[in-house]
Amino acid sequence: MSANGFSFEVEAQDGNARASTLTTKRGKALLPTFMPVGTQGSVKTLSPAEVAGTGAQIVLGNTYHLMLRPGAEAIDSFGGLAEWSRWKGLTLTDSGGFQAFSLSKLTKMTDEGFVFHSHLDGSKHALTPEEAVRIQGLIGADIQMQLDDCPPGEAPLPRVEEALRRTNLWSARALATPRPDGQALFGIIQGSTHVDLRKRHAEEQAALSFDGLALGGFSVGEPIPAMYAALAEVAPGVDPKRPRYLMGVGTPADLLEGIEHGIDMFDCVLPTRNARNGQALTRFGKVVIKQARYVADRLPLDPSCACPACAGGYSRAYLRHLFQAGEILALRLLSVHNLHFYGELVRGARKAILAQSYRAYKVRLMDSMTKADPADMKSD
Amino acid sequence: MSANGFSFEVEAQDGNARASTLTTKRGKALLPTFMPVGTQGSVKTLSPAEVAGTGAQIVLGNTYHLMLRPGAEAIDSFGGLAEWSRWKGLTLTDSGGFQAFSLSKLTKMTDEGFVFHSHLDGSKHALTPEEAVRIQGLIGADIQMQLDDCPPGEAPLPRVEEALRRTNLWSARALATPRPDGQALFGIIQGSTHVDLRKRHAEEQAALSFDGLALGGFSVGEPIPAMYAALAEVAPGVDPKRPRYLMGVGTPADLLEGIEHGIDMFDCVLPTRNARNGQALTRFGKVVIKQARYVADRLPLDPSCACPACAGGYSRAYLRHLFQAGEILALRLLSVHNLHFYGELVRGARKAILAQSYRAYKVRLMDSMTKADPADMKSD
Repeated sequence: MSANGFSFEVEAQDGNARASTLTTKRGKALLPTFMPVGTQGSVKTLSPAEVAGTGAQIVLGNTYHLMLRPGAEAIDSFGGLAEWSRWKGLTLTDSGGFQAFSLSKLTKMTDEGFVFHSHLDGSKHALTPEEAVRIQGLIGADIQMQLDDCPPGEAPLPRVEEALRRTNLWSARALATPRPDGQALFGIIQGSTHVDLRKRHAEEQAALSFDGLALGGFSVGEPIPAMYAALAEVAPGVDPKRPRYLMGVGTPADLLEGIEHGIDMFDCVLPTRNARNGQALTRFGKVVIKQARYVADRLPLDPSCACPACAGGYSRAYLRHLFQAGEILALRLLSVHNLHFYGELVRGARKAILAQSYRAYKVRLMDSMTKADPADMKSD
Repeated sequence: MSANGFSFEVEAQDGNARASTLTTKRGKALLPTFMPVGTQGSVKTLSPAEVAGTGAQIVLGNTYHLMLRPGAEAIDSFGGLAEWSRWKGLTLTDSGGFQAFSLSKLTKMTDEGFVFHSHLDGSKHALTPEEAVRIQGLIGADIQMQLDDCPPGEAPLPRVEEALRRTNLWSARALATPRPDGQALFGIIQGSTHVDLRKRHAEEQAALSFDGLALGGFSVGEPIPAMYAALAEVAPGVDPKRPRYLMGVGTPADLLEGIEHGIDMFDCVLPTRNARNGQALTRFGKVVIKQARYVADRLPLDPSCACPACAGGYSRAYLRHLFQAGEILALRLLSVHNLHFYGELVRGARKAILAQSYRAYKVRLMDSMTKADPADMKSD
């Protein structure tokens, strides 16, 4: 255990897939895990207890949003993100850089950092490597992410090389900035789908005293097969003594792929965002709830699912009605279902890794997700 | 107990206020009670379990909305409103007439009934006294309401007299229409704020075999003092052997007033609608959560409240943030709080009536709601 109370232990490895435990001063998380996104201090539509009920152990907060509203100092005055939002588990914050670049206007990036204007009121803000640590320190997550330079997926090679150079500058400055006791700091590996750059950057970042290492700059516009190929080459080589986090990824298939290559942590808005668009993700594929085929369907989203929506006996017909009628309960039930499915996926993966049967688990679930048609499912 | 399994028993009376029990084939409700409105088969933002947790025993469904979407036959095929929407308590449906008149266009009312066009797709529908019973029969609520003619609060006397005449015609036709086993039917007393008409209509309706008697046509635009004055004169005289239901009313003060004059049942969208507009109702008055005064307020909405929002420790500052940020969790927490407050109000009223202290209960709560300022409350 390091001085900040952070530790990481691998219990089992199956191929490159790992079952591990992450410990912070505030608690533990069993990995691999999926971290629901609570952008503005709330996993959209759900209560903290409902999020915990899906098996989620860590919730991600977005520094960009939180620093602008309500402000990092306001969260600090409530004892930090978890206490403020009544979340009993662990928390992780991103650095804010990615969203400063993608959401706000007139953003300038130099070696010093970002200068951007709030999308809320146009106010001007600076986000440097030091400031990202200071702000995340106030927000008070268990795990901070360093400020990095994350080019888009189609960026040309020189731009990707620049991102590595700049991120390295920022790594040193982030690590030199004091953090509150009990907060870990993860470094971020860039390099797009260039395996050589990724490997080099993984080495460079691993040489520093980060508590964990993340793969950033994936799922930012590059083709999925290119991401998978790079993941397969790069992820298993990232320092095995530290947790590996694949940022902003992804679909159920992405999680299965990432875990196979040694990824321990994931986050993505997909399960909750798709839920709000009426899409349920199940072991038997997608259920697009507004489809007319569900109008008289008495089955729950997935008859074998134990989530509050499915075990609660809400029929697809009723969910479809709620969604068509614009009722918030539809968004809640689809959200909790999707997060529960993600929770089941990573729990199943962990169990399979411990049993040395991860590959079979992955194949079975991929087959089930791609070959079945939820509309054909019958009750047991 | 009548042939349809419906019964009503008054356990205690304190002045005109009553503590009573209503029994249907499917269950019991202790009165006085407040019935949350689940217009489209869902009490907005909340799960059935959350609604039950506020103490609600009966949920109201709107026939107008449900007959148009998903259709009464669809609900019938799922075993009725409660089973379809996973609500374990009792249900009541209105006749659809009020909303056919207020929500749809080109509505015509004759002695035969209503002809209206759906606000959803323009399709043409007829709602007669017989059809209202048939449709509510399919929706399958424990308690049906007869089709009535409900003029606006400012209607001139001849129009109010016409409403009585027409409603009487429809009473006979509704009662002559067969209903499914286990469904009760309530009659509706009109008369606006004309005490003589109200009293006459109460007698006329009480002469028929309705299972309960409702006061309709209140809170439809008339001045509040006029409503209270009419209630005081009329409600205590409505047949004491049947439950008395004050439709579409109201504020916490309205409930306290109605109970004092012998009303047993209430429904209103106010607690849930105001919640979605950011207004919490508490024993100490209103909390308009977006106000800047709450920006750093660490207290829950009401420190002495046991609802999931208050007992869950959500601060006003956090709720304000969620509301300002457009997060659905804010609407949920305010909704469950407001319904819990209504639940507490009617539970407290029942207890006070049983203890022969209702008047003091009412005065104490009215004083507390009108004289305190929630922002000045301190934690215990």
